[in-house]
Amino acid sequence: MQGALKSSVRLLHTARTIIFSNYGAPKEVLQVLKHKLPEPGLGEATLKLIAAPINPSDINQIEGTYASKPEFSKRFGSSDAVAVPGNEGVFEVIGLGEPQTGIDRETNSKDVVNTSLNTLEVGDWVIPKKASFGTWTTFKNAKISDLISLGKPNGLTPLQAATIAVNPLTAYRMLKDFAKLEKGDWFIQNGSNSGVGRMAIQLAKLWGIKSINVVRDRRDIDELKQELHDLGADHVLTEEQVADRSIKTVISDWTNGAMCKLALNCVGGRSSTNIAKQLTDQGVIVTYGGMSKQPVGIPTSLYIFKDIHSRGFWVTKWKNNNPEEFEQMIQKVASMFRAKELEVTAINTVEFQNLENAPSEEFLSLFKSSIAKSGKYVIVAN
Amino acid sequence: MQGALKSSVRLLHTARTIIFSNYGAPKEVLQVLKHKLPEPGLGEATLKLIAAPINPSDINQIEGTYASKPEFSKRFGSSDAVAVPGNEGVFEVIGLGEPQTGIDRETNSKDVVNTSLNTLEVGDWVIPKKASFGTWTTFKNAKISDLISLGKPNGLTPLQAATIAVNPLTAYRMLKDFAKLEKGDWFIQNGSNSGVGRMAIQLAKLWGIKSINVVRDRRDIDELKQELHDLGADHVLTEEQVADRSIKTVISDWTNGAMCKLALNCVGGRSSTNIAKQLTDQGVIVTYGGMSKQPVGIPTSLYIFKDIHSRGFWVTKWKNNNPEEFEQMIQKVASMFRAKELEVTAINTVEFQNLENAPSEEFLSLFKSSIAKSGKYVIVAN
Repeated sequence: MQGALKSSVRLLHTARTIIFSNYGAPKEVLQVLKHKLPEPGLGEATLKLIAAPINPSDINQIEGTYASKPEFSKRFGSSDAVAVPGNEGVFEVIGLGEPQTGIDRETNSKDVVNTSLNTLEVGDWVIPKKASFGTWTTFKNAKISDLISLGKPNGLTPLQAATIAVNPLTAYRMLKDFAKLEKGDWFIQNGSNSGVGRMAIQLAKLWGIKSINVVRDRRDIDELKQELHDLGADHVLTEEQVADRSIKTVISDWTNGAMCKLALNCVGGRSSTNIAKQLTDQGVIVTYGGMSKQPVGIPTSLYIFKDIHSRGFWVTKWKNNNPEEFEQMIQKVASMFRAKELEVTAINTVEFQNLENAPSEEFLSLFKSSIAKSGKYVIVAN
Repeated sequence: MQGALKSSVRLLHTARTIIFSNYGAPKEVLQVLKHKLPEPGLGEATLKLIAAPINPSDINQIEGTYASKPEFSKRFGSSDAVAVPGNEGVFEVIGLGEPQTGIDRETNSKDVVNTSLNTLEVGDWVIPKKASFGTWTTFKNAKISDLISLGKPNGLTPLQAATIAVNPLTAYRMLKDFAKLEKGDWFIQNGSNSGVGRMAIQLAKLWGIKSINVVRDRRDIDELKQELHDLGADHVLTEEQVADRSIKTVISDWTNGAMCKLALNCVGGRSSTNIAKQLTDQGVIVTYGGMSKQPVGIPTSLYIFKDIHSRGFWVTKWKNNNPEEFEQMIQKVASMFRAKELEVTAINTVEFQNLENAPSEEFLSLFKSSIAKSGKYVIVAN
């Protein structure tokens, strides 16, 4: 390798990387590879894992059912072409190659290196700029131009940084880009207990927007309601409650007749029908998930007589279409985390000790066992 | 009455008017009233029926299930408040009251009278400006400001003029307002055999836009396909064919990989799902009817990964929101009919003779028996 280390100790790290060579059930197709990391090349940084979440989209990607496909290549000297799972995560910069200047061979552009990243320092936290980065690895080298720097943590937690690019961004853009929500306006969402749902509750509260939050009934429903109220939820309803015809009058009372300008749907099926019915004329329902695996069903009359709009949102596409705004958003959300205006809740952390020397199989089993469990997990290096 | 007749013979016409005083099944609630028409008042015209269609929306309005409600009042000296059905229709001007100028008492506006209508002449054909006009009557007086003049028929047929305000307009606006369809672009529709569907086929053909037309299978499917091809349809598929997974490849071949930019849906349920699947990225599905009485079901993945938009169109609302453009549209479509660029097909006409003296019950039974039959009917005065 031509690159020279600038400011870290010259050391070849031993990395453990989760890989798969064929799509399939994670417990069957995931493997782990132990390999020596080369020195970082020109314009590259050496990264050490801080935390990587296991998202449903990661699992679907391994299963081969996700729209965004990972890159398969014969990296690490493997005989088969392999892909590294993990779309999201935060790493610490532990080494830097020579900065890259001049004309980039790939893009033929003179300013491929983000100038803010030319000032990247060892100890900075970084997240991937794009999906399919392959975050399920203890160490990796990456092009600096593929990274967004969060600077030094300064109060940011591993959990916050690891999940900054999907849930808060999805909630933020959906509340901003589909309906003009002014202070005092209302929105309704299902799956309100999800990571995105909890972010939407908090952001709405911060911005003076009122929320009606639908969740599935469960044994500890009162606890969950209290938890969402504590985050800032104005009202919490069960799916059964919002399916009842009388709910329209109740919501009309709450909203002073205005009803909801926006509905956020991550469930589909009857649940999407029920929240769409609470929209005002020209209200918008935005679908970002489909937990029920049922189509989004909207009554004909809502389209024809109420002129409601039904749309979709995919944060991966938004990021690719808005690279500069994406970076600004990340910095904005990071500052909200640091100011304790937002918090990440209801996510389980699984700690992994001794990144450099722990057995590889242990690293692999953390992911496999977390995928097998219900709830959302983030692997945190310690 | 203060108005004086300007150019018609001074004659009090005997009108037969269909009425209902309660919502319900048309065969039960519809009645007929025979009454002497007063002379036309200030700013009014006396109208004689040329033709009035029976639309599904008229029937739903009588049943009380339509979003747009008719006006109930104690007109014609009836003891109960009654409404007159019929949203669409064409009339001949047979008398004119004194022209109304100056300040209108209702609106306090100085120019309430459409200047083009100040030139309204006996013999001109007129259609109502707004829905719920109450067209199911042999004669009526109406405010000139509530009318749109088509001028002298000049080749326009009663069928064309009577149906000008709904089907052609709905098809025209849906093809223009939701997607940018350039020459050679494709759209798909279900219920292609409907009045709107047949207009969409013809307009698309005129504009160089390609159509894929879905219809229900039937015994005379080959005849129907030929009929739609003759109107300008590029392809005609049955619901079964468009439900087959392999159809995507076929449509991709037809469209050279471009798929459809627009889908027009008047069916809902699985049919809407199947046509939505043929949309390109950011394609739009527009719902204007729901014959299956099933919700519009769109798979979550189409919203999230293909960013398709689902919207609705209601010609009544469009007319109310765009009164000037509506009048221009009517003149444009009338000139397309006169130029034989468009034709009205697959509508049954029922003739009614001797408007002035025929028995009232005969007039009522025309409507009742046409409602009871399948297919679309227009009552034409002869």
